[in-house]
Amino acid sequence: MDAWEAIYTTRAMRRVKKDPIPVEVQKKILDAAIRAPSGGNTQTWRFLLVDDPAVKAKLGPIYRECMDMVWGSIYNTRLDAAKASPEDPESVEFMKMYRSASHLAEHFEDYPLMLFAFCQFDTSGGSIFPAVWNAMLAARIEGVGSSLTSAFHFKGDAMKKVLGVPEEGNWIFSACVTFGYPTGRWGVAPRRPAHEVSFRNSWDGALGFEIPEPLWSMD
Amino acid sequence: MDAWEAIYTTRAMRRVKKDPIPVEVQKKILDAAIRAPSGGNTQTWRFLLVDDPAVKAKLGPIYRECMDMVWGSIYNTRLDAAKASPEDPESVEFMKMYRSASHLAEHFEDYPLMLFAFCQFDTSGGSIFPAVWNAMLAARIEGVGSSLTSAFHFKGDAMKKVLGVPEEGNWIFSACVTFGYPTGRWGVAPRRPAHEVSFRNSWDGALGFEIPEPLWSMD
Repeated sequence: MDAWEAIYTTRAMRRVKKDPIPVEVQKKILDAAIRAPSGGNTQTWRFLLVDDPAVKAKLGPIYRECMDMVWGSIYNTRLDAAKASPEDPESVEFMKMYRSASHLAEHFEDYPLMLFAFCQFDTSGGSIFPAVWNAMLAARIEGVGSSLTSAFHFKGDAMKKVLGVPEEGNWIFSACVTFGYPTGRWGVAPRRPAHEVSFRNSWDGALGFEIPEPLWSMD
Repeated sequence: MDAWEAIYTTRAMRRVKKDPIPVEVQKKILDAAIRAPSGGNTQTWRFLLVDDPAVKAKLGPIYRECMDMVWGSIYNTRLDAAKASPEDPESVEFMKMYRSASHLAEHFEDYPLMLFAFCQFDTSGGSIFPAVWNAMLAARIEGVGSSLTSAFHFKGDAMKKVLGVPEEGNWIFSACVTFGYPTGRWGVAPRRPAHEVSFRNSWDGALGFEIPEPLWSMD
C-alpha cells in the first residue's frame, strides 16, 4: 500500500466483524509499533494483546461504565447541545461519533483483538502514542480497522486489576486499541483544514498558504 | 513510497542540511498531521511552523538550557553509567543518542523548519501525538528527516513567551519537531524485539510468537 493511503485512510473503524485477526497480522502490528521513537530511545513500553473471551467479558462492563462517565462529564455539554439542536451540522457530526463510540462500548466483547499500551514515566504521551499509531497504521495496511480509546482512565484501577498490571513499576495506561475487519468502507475522515489550525512563527502568525482540499483522495 | 518503508525508516534524523523545506512539502506535512484521530474528533490542536531565523535565535538558548536540565535530571544516571563503562553495548547506544541529541541542541538554529504542536485539555497525549507522528511520517515520505523533542517542557513558559502562546485557552505544549534533509542515510532504528515487550491476555501472559528480525528491511 502507498504510504499516503495508509496515512489518509486510517480512521476510527468501530463497526467490525468478529473474525479473528491472524497471527501474521498481529506480528506486523506489534513490529510496527516498536519502530516508533521514544524519549532517549528508552522504549519503556509494554503491549498487551487481548483476545481471550473471558478477559474481554471482564473488561466490557468496566468499559461501559467508563463511557457512561465520559458522556456524563467531558462530553455532557456537547451531548446536550447536540440533542437540543439535532439538525445543526456540528450536532450531526457529534451524534455520528456518539453512536459509533456507543456501538464500540455495547459490543466491546465482540472485537476479536485489542491492544493495551502502557508506558513508564512518560506523562506527555510522546513516547507511546507514536507506537500506538504505528500499530493502527500497520493494521490499516493489512485491511484491519482499529479504534483508539483512552476511556479506561476513568476506571483505571479496575482495568489494571483484570489485566494484572503490577503496582510497582510506575506503569501508566495509555491506550486501548480495538481491532477488527471493517464491515464498511475505508475513507478519509472529515477534518478542519490544516490552514485553520496552523500558523507560522508566532501563535497567530500567517501560515502563508491554504489547503482547501485533502492532498490525497481515494479517487 | 510503500507504507511499510515509511513506518520502518522514520527515525530521529538530527544531522540535516540547512536547505529550506519547500512549501509543497510543508503542506503535505500539515495535511497529514490533521488526518490523525483525536478524542471525540474534537481536533483541539494547533500547529506552529517556525522558520524565522529571529525566532529560532530566541528559542535556541532556551532549548540548550532545557537539554542541560534533561541530562542533569532524568538521564543523569544513564549518562554517568555510560561514561563510567563506555565499552558496554548499552553505553555505546546511549552515547550515540547523547551525541545526536546534543548535536541538535548545539545546532538548533540551523534546522530550516520546526513544528510546534499544542493541544487543549488532552493530558495523555492521545489526541496530539498521532498527528505529530503523521507529520514525521509525511516528511519521511518526502525525503525530509525529523526529530521529536519534548524538552521545552523544562522551560515551557520561556518558550511559550517567544511564540506568543496565550495564557487563556489551556493550551498544552506537546512537541517540537525539527525538520531537514538528512546528511546521512535512512535506515531501520535499533529496537528491542516486539516479543520482549508484548504479552497476551495478562501482564505476563505468553504472547505465543517471537519476531526475532524486523518484518521489513531495506534490502
